[in-house]
Amino acid sequence: MLNIAVIGAGRIGHVHAKTIIAHPDAALALVCDPVGDAARTLADQYGTRACERAEDVFADPGIDAVIIGSPTALHIPHLLAAAEAGKAVLCEKPIALDMKDVEAARAELDAVKSPVMFGFNRRFDPSFAAMRAAVENGRVGELEQLTIISRDPAAPPVDYIKVSGGIFRDMTIHDFDTARFFLGEITEVYAAGQNLDPAIEEAGDFDAAVVTLKAACGAVATIINNRHCSSGYDQRLEASGRDGALLAENIRSTTVRLSNAKVTDAQEPYLDFFLERYADAYRLELSAFIEAVETGAPTPTGVDDAVKALALAEAATESARTGRPVAVA
Amino acid sequence: MLNIAVIGAGRIGHVHAKTIIAHPDAALALVCDPVGDAARTLADQYGTRACERAEDVFADPGIDAVIIGSPTALHIPHLLAAAEAGKAVLCEKPIALDMKDVEAARAELDAVKSPVMFGFNRRFDPSFAAMRAAVENGRVGELEQLTIISRDPAAPPVDYIKVSGGIFRDMTIHDFDTARFFLGEITEVYAAGQNLDPAIEEAGDFDAAVVTLKAACGAVATIINNRHCSSGYDQRLEASGRDGALLAENIRSTTVRLSNAKVTDAQEPYLDFFLERYADAYRLELSAFIEAVETGAPTPTGVDDAVKALALAEAATESARTGRPVAVA
Amino acid sequence: MLNIAVIGAGRIGHVHAKTIIAHPDAALALVCDPVGDAARTLADQYGTRACERAEDVFADPGIDAVIIGSPTALHIPHLLAAAEAGKAVLCEKPIALDMKDVEAARAELDAVKSPVMFGFNRRFDPSFAAMRAAVENGRVGELEQLTIISRDPAAPPVDYIKVSGGIFRDMTIHDFDTARFFLGEITEVYAAGQNLDPAIEEAGDFDAAVVTLKAACGAVATIINNRHCSSGYDQRLEASGRDGALLAENIRSTTVRLSNAKVTDAQEPYLDFFLERYADAYRLELSAFIEAVETGAPTPTGVDDAVKALALAEAATESARTGRPVAVA
Amino acid sequence: MLNIAVIGAGRIGHVHAKTIIAHPDAALALVCDPVGDAARTLADQYGTRACERAEDVFADPGIDAVIIGSPTALHIPHLLAAAEAGKAVLCEKPIALDMKDVEAARAELDAVKSPVMFGFNRRFDPSFAAMRAAVENGRVGELEQLTIISRDPAAPPVDYIKVSGGIFRDMTIHDFDTARFFLGEITEVYAAGQNLDPAIEEAGDFDAAVVTLKAACGAVATIINNRHCSSGYDQRLEASGRDGALLAENIRSTTVRLSNAKVTDAQEPYLDFFLERYADAYRLELSAFIEAVETGAPTPTGVDDAVKALALAEAATESARTGRPVAVA
Repeated sequence: MLNIAVIGAGRIGHVHAKTIIAHPDAALALVCDPVGDAARTLADQYGTRACERAEDVFADPGIDAVIIGSPTALHIPHLLAAAEAGKAVLCEKPIALDMKDVEAARAELDAVKSPVMFGFNRRFDPSFAAMRAAVENGRVGELEQLTIISRDPAAPPVDYIKVSGGIFRDMTIHDFDTARFFLGEITEVYAAGQNLDPAIEEAGDFDAAVVTLKAACGAVATIINNRHCSSGYDQRLEASGRDGALLAENIRSTTVRLSNAKVTDAQEPYLDFFLERYADAYRLELSAFIEAVETGAPTPTGVDDAVKALALAEAATESARTGRPVAVA
Repeated sequence: MLNIAVIGAGRIGHVHAKTIIAHPDAALALVCDPVGDAARTLADQYGTRACERAEDVFADPGIDAVIIGSPTALHIPHLLAAAEAGKAVLCEKPIALDMKDVEAARAELDAVKSPVMFGFNRRFDPSFAAMRAAVENGRVGELEQLTIISRDPAAPPVDYIKVSGGIFRDMTIHDFDTARFFLGEITEVYAAGQNLDPAIEEAGDFDAAVVTLKAACGAVATIINNRHCSSGYDQRLEASGRDGALLAENIRSTTVRLSNAKVTDAQEPYLDFFLERYADAYRLELSAFIEAVETGAPTPTGVDDAVKALALAEAATESARTGRPVAVA
Repeated sequence: MLNIAVIGAGRIGHVHAKTIIAHPDAALALVCDPVGDAARTLADQYGTRACERAEDVFADPGIDAVIIGSPTALHIPHLLAAAEAGKAVLCEKPIALDMKDVEAARAELDAVKSPVMFGFNRRFDPSFAAMRAAVENGRVGELEQLTIISRDPAAPPVDYIKVSGGIFRDMTIHDFDTARFFLGEITEVYAAGQNLDPAIEEAGDFDAAVVTLKAACGAVATIINNRHCSSGYDQRLEASGRDGALLAENIRSTTVRLSNAKVTDAQEPYLDFFLERYADAYRLELSAFIEAVETGAPTPTGVDDAVKALALAEAATESARTGRPVAVA
Repeated sequence: MLNIAVIGAGRIGHVHAKTIIAHPDAALALVCDPVGDAARTLADQYGTRACERAEDVFADPGIDAVIIGSPTALHIPHLLAAAEAGKAVLCEKPIALDMKDVEAARAELDAVKSPVMFGFNRRFDPSFAAMRAAVENGRVGELEQLTIISRDPAAPPVDYIKVSGGIFRDMTIHDFDTARFFLGEITEVYAAGQNLDPAIEEAGDFDAAVVTLKAACGAVATIINNRHCSSGYDQRLEASGRDGALLAENIRSTTVRLSNAKVTDAQEPYLDFFLERYADAYRLELSAFIEAVETGAPTPTGVDDAVKALALAEAATESARTGRPVAVA
């Protein structure tokens, strides 16, 4: 049983709290958030303790591990402090808003001894994980082309957009990790940003994008993003190899199909958003974290993965702004 | 090149004429119908000859083969006369409206030397034929259960219903043949007739039915019929065996799928009716007929198949009326 | 929070215990089983109490409700005793192995005041429930034909078959309830039993069957059962109405599709068996039970439903043995 | 009845000849090819006349229209000569191997009076055409993202590759036209070329590519090409709009699905190549050509479409070689 504290009682903090509560090998021991009643409210919901200062989490000897869902700018400071205190860390993405912040902390990050894992939850989605395993097992031969379709049901508020770091750091970062999960290292990024909603354009961001990634292995990945999708949360993945292809379809809440005079075999809209769509993934991510902590094995998504995904996000941001491909170190 | 005459210029006569015209190895040499301008109109459409009397077809030395699409009561007389004249015969189903008529002509039918084939077109549907071939090749092991779903888009006029011989002879007869095509001989029939449309009930017929067929091999077939279906011509087949199952889905005119806020991956209604749905089947049926005529090989659907399908239709009619299963000889 | 005791620590008892543990509004307060360590083992797994005698359950003032998963012959005695003790009851199907046992207890059953619900879990499956709601909302017009396909992945041991009451009471009983759930009262049953596995035939049972049910509303239901299916637990449902049709497809553990030189868009085998396939249904069944207990509303599946499903099972058993349709009162 | 001559008796010439023969409103009047017996062999197959010199086609007063399937370098000369002779022209793509050749003939092309159409057959594919019509009818709102997946079953011989003008002119040109068909004018092209087969790399070409097109309307199109695909000719199209999305799936020769212990609902490989996959499209293209000729209406795909598709191919070629996006005039 791993005693876990959650730092940050926002949307993603709620996801993790709920996941911990339902997990047989985890206990929600503490919730921390400096803002108003946020920590208290979430803690009360699950009958656990709350605090306002992150320092109180790190100092608490009853805490084995910390899940960091604080604002992005605090990810690295919280990660380092938790590790310093001997806690295992599961940190949300992105690792930072800026590669400069990563570079500034590079030595400290490299010196961390505690298990550290990053919340690239989609790696643990049963369909994506099964595809990856099938690729590893040679079911489709060497991968040649990867297509990632990722559309949110609706854009977040413009106020959030303004502090999000932009679509590539905030939304595409998951897809960058998926590309790396399947293809390994990426050498070049080209991003075509789109401005479909004037309000988001005014906020200085794109609300849709198509990204091309050249991988060192010779494969090419395409990411198709959109901040809105009328049918729900559109999450598909297609891995095409020399000897075959694998496709992960969207998920609906039932398998019911409707036929009438206008449509046949019509299915329901997709699951609406990440909480529902990736509920299994969050659960399996937590299991993987617990297993790594308990066995001492490396975590499946470490600092290096977090840094490389951020580097791709920065490259994509630059590419979309300059209109030119950007090489990645 | 086979010179073919079509007797009967009604709906099915038009289907055959069109199929012959498009076939590289067949010529439409003559169209025969005693009623009004029917023969002349159809013949003119394809630039061929017309006549009113079937005798003129049989006497014509330029005719190699006859497709009989006359009223059911004339099927046996026309078949026998055509065969007597040395013509090959492709006769529409059912062979007769009544087993008594078959019995009365049994000796003559048995003595026929010409190639005789019956128009069980669905055996030649590419999907059903591929399923049958897969079964033959052992792809799913011994068959255990067969499900035949066959729903027309809309009921024919009540005036037609009254002279049709009833739903089992007119509509289900194809499904009886499909059951025999996959399972061989049938030993018992149970039919639950349904009266959904009062007008058809008044005409003395059912407009929907569920039929259970016990096969000698131990398998059981289910036929689900309905004279109407809001999504079009619903034609599906499922063959379930010890080691697997095969399913033939409906066909649409395009592969387009629509997704929006209400439906996802919604497909089009099914092809509307038999002319479109079984266009390939009619073409391949004609090819099979021509090949049998030209090679002297047995036709794939002979008198025995026609008689046995009719016997099943009679048994189903009796079963639906009495409410009891009926054994088949 | 409802304190629940589970009587019977067999396969279905484990399902219920697991479902209770994961349910936010239920507590597993006691496990009862007279055989060996069964109760103790299951209780220990979830850190709760165990007992051997059902009387101890009924006498326990800390128990609010009892889930009865004892052998079928004990269902009525346990139900009556629990109700007598003021406990709410969720009883597994079938209510009894024999209608005579039901009749003998009829007066007592009618006099029960406690909430009583029967475990027709499939009514709570999200897909089937959504189909039923869509039918209620008139999405497909008046129902005309219902097709229930229900195939187990593999037959139970012959020793179980011998005491199971036969395929219709043991397996088809769920499908009888599904037919009633969609079509209301059934007036006639015709069952074609199949003997595919000689070992089961020797045990005096069928291992496959096709059942036709005539409903009072004029619709006809078809049930296709098989004790084995190579692709897993085949659970499909199709409701065809005047204006449209609804189909519930099978469920797989992922949405991955494989394409290669031999197959395209190939999906995984179905979820293997009822624990996985109906996990959501068991959870929602428990929620419905708790809600009925707490609100005092009628349970969704009462004694009448249990009795009528059993009557259909008896009629099907008779029909399959005599070869004749059997009218249902 | 349009009397048509086919110039070029190669692979595409055979496709057109077969399509003409089966078309009720067209006659194959002449086949022309200077090489060996090619023209004679094809003409004999359909019982028509042959010649070796294109001049003889243009001079023949019995010819109403010419389908140009000669080597690409001859497209413009043949087109101009045929038009000069008053023949209607259906010319294969690309219009030329090089934009310089187009520019050199620009004045003459602009002066052509005869109906001229280019063979962008995919516009006439029933599924793609239905999608386009649905978009026009506002079924999915304003288009935002278009995904074109186009993979050949196997690469052509390296000798052909060498003279093909490269993958973008030879293969992607169809996809460029599809992008324009849906999105209108394109302003920028970025192409990531891939070298998967060393033999094709040695021949100086790519054998796979991912292309991003920015459209003037704000939408972005992605083209995913590969010279081989293990499952057949992979031809899919997805148009995603503000209010919905349309998807055209691949086509198989039957609708049969196989389920067993390893796969469920497995479909067949895709139709193998363009002759089968686009048979309907070639037929409907010919119908559109005949209709334009007979009514005097503009052809649906004129010189301007051919030139713009070639310009996109040149831009993609440059982009893939330089690694930079290329603006299109």
